Amino acid sequence: MRYQTILDTVRAEVSPLVGCGRVADYIPALATVDPSRFGMALATADGTVYGVGDWQTSLSIQSISKVFSLAMALSGDDEEIWRRVGREPSGSPFNALQQLENDRGVPRNPFVNAGALVVVDHVLALTGDPTGAVLDLLRTEADNPAIDVDRQLAKSEAGNRHRNAALAHLLADYGALTHPVDVVLDQYTDLCAIAMSCRDLARAAGFLARHGLRADGSRLLSRSTAKRLNATMLTCGTYDSAGEFAYRVGLPAKSGVGGGILAVVPNRCTVAVWSPGLDESGNSCAGRAALDAFTTLTGWSVF
Amino acid sequence: MRYQTILDTVRAEVSPLVGCGRVADYIPALATVDPSRFGMALATADGTVYGVGDWQTSLSIQSISKVFSLAMALSGDDEEIWRRVGREPSGSPFNALQQLENDRGVPRNPFVNAGALVVVDHVLALTGDPTGAVLDLLRTEADNPAIDVDRQLAKSEAGNRHRNAALAHLLADYGALTHPVDVVLDQYTDLCAIAMSCRDLARAAGFLARHGLRADGSRLLSRSTAKRLNATMLTCGTYDSAGEFAYRVGLPAKSGVGGGILAVVPNRCTVAVWSPGLDESGNSCAGRAALDAFTTLTGWSVF
Amino acid sequence: MRYQTILDTVRAEVSPLVGCGRVADYIPALATVDPSRFGMALATADGTVYGVGDWQTSLSIQSISKVFSLAMALSGDDEEIWRRVGREPSGSPFNALQQLENDRGVPRNPFVNAGALVVVDHVLALTGDPTGAVLDLLRTEADNPAIDVDRQLAKSEAGNRHRNAALAHLLADYGALTHPVDVVLDQYTDLCAIAMSCRDLARAAGFLARHGLRADGSRLLSRSTAKRLNATMLTCGTYDSAGEFAYRVGLPAKSGVGGGILAVVPNRCTVAVWSPGLDESGNSCAGRAALDAFTTLTGWSVF
Amino acid sequence: MRYQTILDTVRAEVSPLVGCGRVADYIPALATVDPSRFGMALATADGTVYGVGDWQTSLSIQSISKVFSLAMALSGDDEEIWRRVGREPSGSPFNALQQLENDRGVPRNPFVNAGALVVVDHVLALTGDPTGAVLDLLRTEADNPAIDVDRQLAKSEAGNRHRNAALAHLLADYGALTHPVDVVLDQYTDLCAIAMSCRDLARAAGFLARHGLRADGSRLLSRSTAKRLNATMLTCGTYDSAGEFAYRVGLPAKSGVGGGILAVVPNRCTVAVWSPGLDESGNSCAGRAALDAFTTLTGWSVF
Repeated sequence: MRYQTILDTVRAEVSPLVGCGRVADYIPALATVDPSRFGMALATADGTVYGVGDWQTSLSIQSISKVFSLAMALSGDDEEIWRRVGREPSGSPFNALQQLENDRGVPRNPFVNAGALVVVDHVLALTGDPTGAVLDLLRTEADNPAIDVDRQLAKSEAGNRHRNAALAHLLADYGALTHPVDVVLDQYTDLCAIAMSCRDLARAAGFLARHGLRADGSRLLSRSTAKRLNATMLTCGTYDSAGEFAYRVGLPAKSGVGGGILAVVPNRCTVAVWSPGLDESGNSCAGRAALDAFTTLTGWSVF
Repeated sequence: MRYQTILDTVRAEVSPLVGCGRVADYIPALATVDPSRFGMALATADGTVYGVGDWQTSLSIQSISKVFSLAMALSGDDEEIWRRVGREPSGSPFNALQQLENDRGVPRNPFVNAGALVVVDHVLALTGDPTGAVLDLLRTEADNPAIDVDRQLAKSEAGNRHRNAALAHLLADYGALTHPVDVVLDQYTDLCAIAMSCRDLARAAGFLARHGLRADGSRLLSRSTAKRLNATMLTCGTYDSAGEFAYRVGLPAKSGVGGGILAVVPNRCTVAVWSPGLDESGNSCAGRAALDAFTTLTGWSVF
Repeated sequence: MRYQTILDTVRAEVSPLVGCGRVADYIPALATVDPSRFGMALATADGTVYGVGDWQTSLSIQSISKVFSLAMALSGDDEEIWRRVGREPSGSPFNALQQLENDRGVPRNPFVNAGALVVVDHVLALTGDPTGAVLDLLRTEADNPAIDVDRQLAKSEAGNRHRNAALAHLLADYGALTHPVDVVLDQYTDLCAIAMSCRDLARAAGFLARHGLRADGSRLLSRSTAKRLNATMLTCGTYDSAGEFAYRVGLPAKSGVGGGILAVVPNRCTVAVWSPGLDESGNSCAGRAALDAFTTLTGWSVF
Repeated sequence: MRYQTILDTVRAEVSPLVGCGRVADYIPALATVDPSRFGMALATADGTVYGVGDWQTSLSIQSISKVFSLAMALSGDDEEIWRRVGREPSGSPFNALQQLENDRGVPRNPFVNAGALVVVDHVLALTGDPTGAVLDLLRTEADNPAIDVDRQLAKSEAGNRHRNAALAHLLADYGALTHPVDVVLDQYTDLCAIAMSCRDLARAAGFLARHGLRADGSRLLSRSTAKRLNATMLTCGTYDSAGEFAYRVGLPAKSGVGGGILAVVPNRCTVAVWSPGLDESGNSCAGRAALDAFTTLTGWSVF
């Protein structure tokens, strides 16, 4: 089946679901997004992109940024970060303090907020500027120098981050941060506020489908590390419905409360989908349905 | 690379690890197993079997039986069981009562003990005799009518099952069992006490590599259900180190405290490995290393 | 103020509350009790008894029996039981398994169900027959040989004790019971099913107001042990609203889901109150209000 | 027995224990305190003070300040604060975030750190300056205008308050604070850093023994409120060993990690004891033994 046909079919199938769920409202600037938006893009391993709907519209990538921060952390010594963060599914809501307390400051995995804060702290040591480093990667891979932090959104988030501040202070209490709490929080907030389209997201994540190779053929991650990043996305990438996601979709994926989901078909393609209405686990309602339809249609689940 | 060469190479690589870890000692009859045993068998999708070491020696499959019970439950209406059991990773030790209490009697997934008890209760309703039904399946698929429950071990387990009894009574308190507690516990204990070799295990699980088709070409599970069973194994099959297992091995797998691990390479083969020494998560120490070496060597991780 | 006047005043004050709350419905035989019953009895340290309402009607004492089991355990070596049970408030619902699991089989205090099961197991070793020993004490102190187990209720409870069975099996799994699970459960069930009136309850508990002296002047508990039993009632006696109870009432007290509450004014008197409607913590709604009114009126809170 | 004789006897009895336990070391300025210090003071309800050892030496009152903050909060409308804070024992370490998360931002009681932060926020609204208001009370009641915040210690604490910052941000996330996080934390830190002697502490708390009356006979708290504050101290005042403390000592008490403990004998006297070595619950080791000896000797436990 042709890629464009696949996307068109998926879109037709999920269109009744667009608008379902609730738009994230804990950040004022996110709450105003139009819930009827839907976009989906597919980038083949060789970089060709297909799209439907609002696939060229900017969305707030939010937690999807955690994949790119982690890739930055792994692109150095790929074992070091795992001394500071686990890689087990959490079995708890993504921002739970109690798990961090039970585990005495070692976050369960790099995709819960506490884990992402530690990853940002780690990349701060590696690069001095995680947001800058991630933006460089995204712009180059997507071939779009306009990708940037949505400053207004970042400002809005910065005023609503008490829970992340609680996590960061608890980490600091356990000696798990090497930079000041506010510096880490600012970088984390900026990374979450990166705005880019499904088209750019699918292209920028191409290295995950190419087992670590960047668009220009140079290596970002070793083959083994890239596979393992995919494994971590599958087991931990979609909040506390990773099991459900693996069951229904069967692809490594990372979602964000902006309504975006990034999924990987190893060796073949990456898919980015966006629709702002969220289910109760915080995953895009129509986005998830689209990926479910996508693997049902293509049979490309990894299982 | 030839299958036999793969197995020989893996065995050579992990031989220094054989004997590491601790043999399960909570059941007297398990504690006496020789920790220096190691066996590994690979059954291709067409049923040819290769093996090394103690691949034809009987082992106690313990929790690996949960895969076959679940297959039985799914072979009827494949949605019904999910109304009674979740499919999220637990993030907690496999026998935790507190999670069951927090979730008000709905076990987190079918591979934690509470979940397996509910699956057994479900298969009781479907077949009247879960152990008999599973034995039928195993014997036919492995083409070995001698596969059976180790009665001495079952008796030994029955005298040491206070924790499972606690789980079963808690389930009953929530109205989550439809059969008497003792009936469910007896069936569960018998299923765990099934003894069979790596050879038979690899062959008997072939339907997981064949997307639901039995050895004779008839269908046990729909293609989609078989894939989803694999997904559940990957996210929940290895106790609370499913994330680590996915990261290192990258295959759907289910382990048991007898030291066995069953893994699936979809479309290609099933692998059964056995070595009694367990790591602290309850997975076979050398068995896990063998599967890690296996996917590193072959590149057959699903990611 | 004269005792009878106090009781009459309290009754008048709380009469609008009689019938509030919900009658315990988890045991069929308890669910049929008339919610409009209200009785209250006060026994002075010298044994004179005053009463209002249904103070001579039998009620199911349920968890109030835990005070007498504990007194039996303490009447031997008063330190030994504390090696097996803690004495901290639980901060959790009275039957929570997770706390027992976190504390690895050492119940938080003797008044949560798990703790009472261990106390019963302890008194089994001391006396061979906890129910018989407690009945002896109650009959002698209350001077009423008719006090007995309500056999029909006991039978009804025995068929509805899955949660207590879960607790007992979990204790057994931790090696915290020295007798078979079923023996301990049967004794526990019988003790809870003891039926007696407020009059008898107030008199039978007189040793708590007399700092350990029985009605005949002989010593059941040392002065210090009797005070400490009162302390444990105050901090742990009213499920997870012990803090609220101490705040409002300010007396050592123990409640039961049959709607009874036993309270102690050290050196002065014991009070037993009964009304079947329970608040959400499992304490008698009108009974609690009566004790609140009682200490407000008399100023006899211990604080 | 004469008061001075009581104190001398107690001191003789516990002198072998002075120096046991560990001095609090999480704040550099506390870690340097000499562990061999021991002081004890008793102030009768009419204000006469007796003392032994280092009873006139300044100690850091730390969490004992929570009693005075709460008294301030209750001296206004005595019900309002209970809409924001519970009064149940916590059953968990005093600084646990998970309980606060489970209870969705309503701290378990006013003596866990989260609860004290809410009390400070409440007194901020009532007085604009909780530290100033508490100092006024302490100075007047103890008749010592020199009582003050130890500025060096406060500064030292302010640099080590990540865990309290985590609690405060989590409270803020639940909308449970009405003032900025940093303002509340600064006030909380200053209150904990108040330095005063056992003599002053015993005198300043006299209103608790006098059921709400200040030294000059004016009323700080209603009789009922004062009794209830005592009740809350007994059930919640000594971290997660309140049950043990009630059992052994039997008096309302509040301890601090500076090694001080304040206890109340209603209608009779207040006692302040200090020795820096802490047991594993965070209570002064020798101080606790001194209070145990004190009630054993006098029989003045409330039970």
